[in-house]
Amino acid sequence: MSDVTLINIKEEILAENKGLADKLRRRLKERGAFLVNLMSSPGSGKTSLIVRSLQELGSRYRMAVIEGDVDSAVDAERVAREGIRAVQIKTGGSCHLSAAMVEKGLGALSLDSLDLLFLENIGNLICPAGSDTGASLDVALVSIPEGDDKPLKYPLIFRTAHVFVVNKTDVREHFDFDVEAFRARVRRLNPEAPVFEVSCKTGEGIDLWCNWLRERVEEGR
Amino acid sequence: MSDVTLINIKEEILAENKGLADKLRRRLKERGAFLVNLMSSPGSGKTSLIVRSLQELGSRYRMAVIEGDVDSAVDAERVAREGIRAVQIKTGGSCHLSAAMVEKGLGALSLDSLDLLFLENIGNLICPAGSDTGASLDVALVSIPEGDDKPLKYPLIFRTAHVFVVNKTDVREHFDFDVEAFRARVRRLNPEAPVFEVSCKTGEGIDLWCNWLRERVEEGR
Repeated sequence: MSDVTLINIKEEILAENKGLADKLRRRLKERGAFLVNLMSSPGSGKTSLIVRSLQELGSRYRMAVIEGDVDSAVDAERVAREGIRAVQIKTGGSCHLSAAMVEKGLGALSLDSLDLLFLENIGNLICPAGSDTGASLDVALVSIPEGDDKPLKYPLIFRTAHVFVVNKTDVREHFDFDVEAFRARVRRLNPEAPVFEVSCKTGEGIDLWCNWLRERVEEGR
Repeated sequence: MSDVTLINIKEEILAENKGLADKLRRRLKERGAFLVNLMSSPGSGKTSLIVRSLQELGSRYRMAVIEGDVDSAVDAERVAREGIRAVQIKTGGSCHLSAAMVEKGLGALSLDSLDLLFLENIGNLICPAGSDTGASLDVALVSIPEGDDKPLKYPLIFRTAHVFVVNKTDVREHFDFDVEAFRARVRRLNPEAPVFEVSCKTGEGIDLWCNWLRERVEEGR
């Protein structure tokens, strides 16, 4: 068997991605910029959470947004309407953002004049969890209508994200979402990660989320 | 360049999957069994739609369900409570069901005594759209809380599915989902595919969806 060369494509790609992600993290830290990676299912409210956070933190930080999408630029246009610089990455079919795509997005921004960057990953609870983007903080967003069983079905993202945000609390009474059961399921996979409950529609809970985020930015950059 | 061997892994895997999927489709047709593949984001209501369809069509067909999940068997257990044979496929990380996984699931069932099989794909709007399962009918499910812009962001699944179901119409008044805009976006990508509006919670629209499905089963098997 000594003349068999085993090429494990997936492991090689992941190792290469991790190397580039670590490089991006170092570069961002040197420039004093903090990158937040937002992951969720389609339609959980990633863009809405970014817009709310931009509004809440706008007086404090110089910010920009990198939007990932398979196609279209509707999210970047929505962010740009807030007067914030937005870069749209169209993956053209790819199911997650790689560090190489993020590097291209960062290349369109001038990092020295930025404190805080939001990265909106592709709407997908599976693939983005397995691919390091170079962010300093990985946020997983779940919304009330999706149900409280998501940690059971998509364990990787619930094990690896640093913080969880439950969105759409304004419609809580119309859905059977047991917040305590959800919190217990998250704790079992990720005991240290905080869970915030917000409504991006009404603004409920956005202050607590942004205060916590502000502390992470101050520590991390 | 004549001594360069190009191995396109992705294309080879896709071609191999397509070959097996075609074989499964032929085998199912020979046995008079019709396989329906349900795809959607996490939490759109795939299991609920399957349960409602089982209840509506239970007197007419002998049915079974193959459940795909990254982890856990909660959906298969819910189906089994309906007195229906359920097979759970745990992909252990994979983001879609391949024809090889479906073949294993079919192997656990006795096809000669079945008329209609539901396949619940992994909760993901991207990867399942690119991988033929061997089903005779591909259904894409979207729910009101996810928003009406999904066809803009995830065009492949909206181009390739045979029929669309919009779930959670019972909460329509609490969300800004413009059904006409959604229908127009679907039509632009997939002019022939019908769009059904249902509430798996209240049962609204389930009869229309099941009548249509029944016609496809009668034609197709």
